[in-house]
Amino acid sequence: MPVNLPLPDPATLFPVAGVRIGVTEAGVRKPDRKDVTVMLVDAGASVAGVFTRNRFCAAPVQICREHLAMAKDVRALVINTGNANAGTGADGLERARAVCQTLARQLGVEVEQVLPFSTGVIMEPLPSERIEAGLPAAIADAKADNWLRAAEGIMTTDTQPKAFGAQIMIAGKPVHITGISKGAGMIRPNMATMLGFIATDACVAQGVMQQLALELAEGSFNRVTVDGDTSTNDSQIVIATNQAGHAVIDSLDSPNGQALKNAMLDVARKLAQAIVRDGEGATKFITITVEGGRDAAECRQAAYAIAHSPLVKTAFFASDPNLGRILAAVGYAGIDDLDQGQIELFLDDVHVVTQGGRNPAYREEDGQRVMRQNEITVRVALGRGTASDTVWTCDLSHDYVTINADYRS
Amino acid sequence: MPVNLPLPDPATLFPVAGVRIGVTEAGVRKPDRKDVTVMLVDAGASVAGVFTRNRFCAAPVQICREHLAMAKDVRALVINTGNANAGTGADGLERARAVCQTLARQLGVEVEQVLPFSTGVIMEPLPSERIEAGLPAAIADAKADNWLRAAEGIMTTDTQPKAFGAQIMIAGKPVHITGISKGAGMIRPNMATMLGFIATDACVAQGVMQQLALELAEGSFNRVTVDGDTSTNDSQIVIATNQAGHAVIDSLDSPNGQALKNAMLDVARKLAQAIVRDGEGATKFITITVEGGRDAAECRQAAYAIAHSPLVKTAFFASDPNLGRILAAVGYAGIDDLDQGQIELFLDDVHVVTQGGRNPAYREEDGQRVMRQNEITVRVALGRGTASDTVWTCDLSHDYVTINADYRS
Repeated sequence: MPVNLPLPDPATLFPVAGVRIGVTEAGVRKPDRKDVTVMLVDAGASVAGVFTRNRFCAAPVQICREHLAMAKDVRALVINTGNANAGTGADGLERARAVCQTLARQLGVEVEQVLPFSTGVIMEPLPSERIEAGLPAAIADAKADNWLRAAEGIMTTDTQPKAFGAQIMIAGKPVHITGISKGAGMIRPNMATMLGFIATDACVAQGVMQQLALELAEGSFNRVTVDGDTSTNDSQIVIATNQAGHAVIDSLDSPNGQALKNAMLDVARKLAQAIVRDGEGATKFITITVEGGRDAAECRQAAYAIAHSPLVKTAFFASDPNLGRILAAVGYAGIDDLDQGQIELFLDDVHVVTQGGRNPAYREEDGQRVMRQNEITVRVALGRGTASDTVWTCDLSHDYVTINADYRS
Repeated sequence: MPVNLPLPDPATLFPVAGVRIGVTEAGVRKPDRKDVTVMLVDAGASVAGVFTRNRFCAAPVQICREHLAMAKDVRALVINTGNANAGTGADGLERARAVCQTLARQLGVEVEQVLPFSTGVIMEPLPSERIEAGLPAAIADAKADNWLRAAEGIMTTDTQPKAFGAQIMIAGKPVHITGISKGAGMIRPNMATMLGFIATDACVAQGVMQQLALELAEGSFNRVTVDGDTSTNDSQIVIATNQAGHAVIDSLDSPNGQALKNAMLDVARKLAQAIVRDGEGATKFITITVEGGRDAAECRQAAYAIAHSPLVKTAFFASDPNLGRILAAVGYAGIDDLDQGQIELFLDDVHVVTQGGRNPAYREEDGQRVMRQNEITVRVALGRGTASDTVWTCDLSHDYVTINADYRS
């Protein structure tokens, strides 16, 4: 059961002019399961992506980077679930290219105009023939109003589809933003999580798209973690179809650029948080804010140390205010000249630690009360500066072990 | 159930001339439990210690560092379990000093000649009065042949006491080495694990003791991990009582120095591995060797990435050869210019991955066979140099979650 994650609201999943989506069941790994999705993009869109920093990146990630570097007009995305096409060597690259080639031929575009994405089990050969055989049905299914089906078509261990949308006005024109994501385990995006696709019909110069993609990832997918395992396939793609009719945004610092970025960031953050809320075995959604640091990087480092500690995560699962474990994690986060006598710790509004020791006013029952909630904010003040940063994570439960001990069976 | 960890063999727990040990039940946290141990050391011993790099280190760790820095003759160690005296601020320091002071007075030595150690729950006030009240009984219990009781007296979530000994000849004189350790969770020593005490009657110049302590830690406690959580209280103490009658060792590179170091390293490694074998919820003991690196540091980094991955650890628990998870961990270990096309992966003798992809000769049933064992060696070759390093760890099971969700209750 995901933590406070509502099912997608179809009323907010706005069609994005210039994007049509089709989904099919190609039997990639299991029968009767939506597992191949195509996203068809009109000519003239601006597109950018950010990808996993895992050095063992999957074949499709390598090809996406290659195709995006050629700076051709991106016309289609093809996404399969059931197989990650990672750890598959030269054969994996060939098979991913074959899928792109077949889709390109059917659409009458060049192979470099197609971006491939895969998610699922690692180190098994991609059944590319099955995916290719499914493409005509996926193309035939393509329509603008298909975001929910796409969100379902990219799921792996997700228990719910993840999709959010927003509508804003830019220069008097309605602009739509819709995004989908997937992921529940192997989540510690070092740029973007497993798969996130965000499209808008806003008009955005290609020249600022990469910056937009990076800033969205930094504010959303790069702030979540489930188990600290950075996936081989993390990909976040941002598409602006340039069909909304307003003047082209050529700076993210302009008023229109800021408005668009903030609205897209809101969608991206919901998508990223949805992954944590649906984290494998998650029973709690935990916001970790570290403040009072010298720079944001050290705050983030401490926040991730807390977020990745199995001891902290199991204490949350148990609703046990064993909060010394949080202090221990801050202590080993790698901030070499940290002065423990300056540390303050809050659990929601409860002041647990002051000057590095137990707050004399702290009562265990207050900590207990907060720990029983399914949404908890941990706030640590380092007392050495004015920077802060925030990370979102979940607890570590029996179900996490069960899910990951049984994933392939 | 620990993994292939025999109960200590009393026949190998040699008394060490110059060390007497006493244990008592002081009711630190629970009744009817050995929880206070004193180790009384004759005048003239050489002593060194290495301690946690956790910036949030416990009060006793701070005092140990302080007392050792004063370079006085160490005459006693006092160890309590049940309470870590960490996250306890100024009060914790005062209480630890009070315990040292009381013991010093009873022994007729100075307070700086006493080293305190604590292990147990974090962020609760140390019941120092109870410990002080127990000291006379502990002193009265002191004898040379008490290592097993001491190993029991320092346990927390350990399911078995951990003690090993060795006897060697140096310059025709018998030399004895006996050590004890404790720890099962919050184990990712960044220098030494929770608590490790190794004593020998060998004659070793104080000037080389710190180097000896560091080299022992590097080859043993600094190579194990259970859950990646570096404790606030990690301490490893090495004592040479200088009573064996041979010429003093003043260089670890001398033949006698090497012989002693190797014998002590063997004991230290068994103590460290015992912690992994008794790791919370452990069902498997896993040796991870990474070779073919440019330097040992990057090999160790990759080995720890594998050892800390919850996905790898749950796959071991499930005996599931989902070995792509190992590749993913190597990929995110932070070796920036890693060429995935060079990676080879072996599971014991089974060659799973070649040139970054599945070995065509690999059969799932071979991987399955090895994964079912309770002792497994993972060997990764990076193909970029000649360095190597090894780390020992265990799997992540339901019992880990159960133990850590219930630790305080």
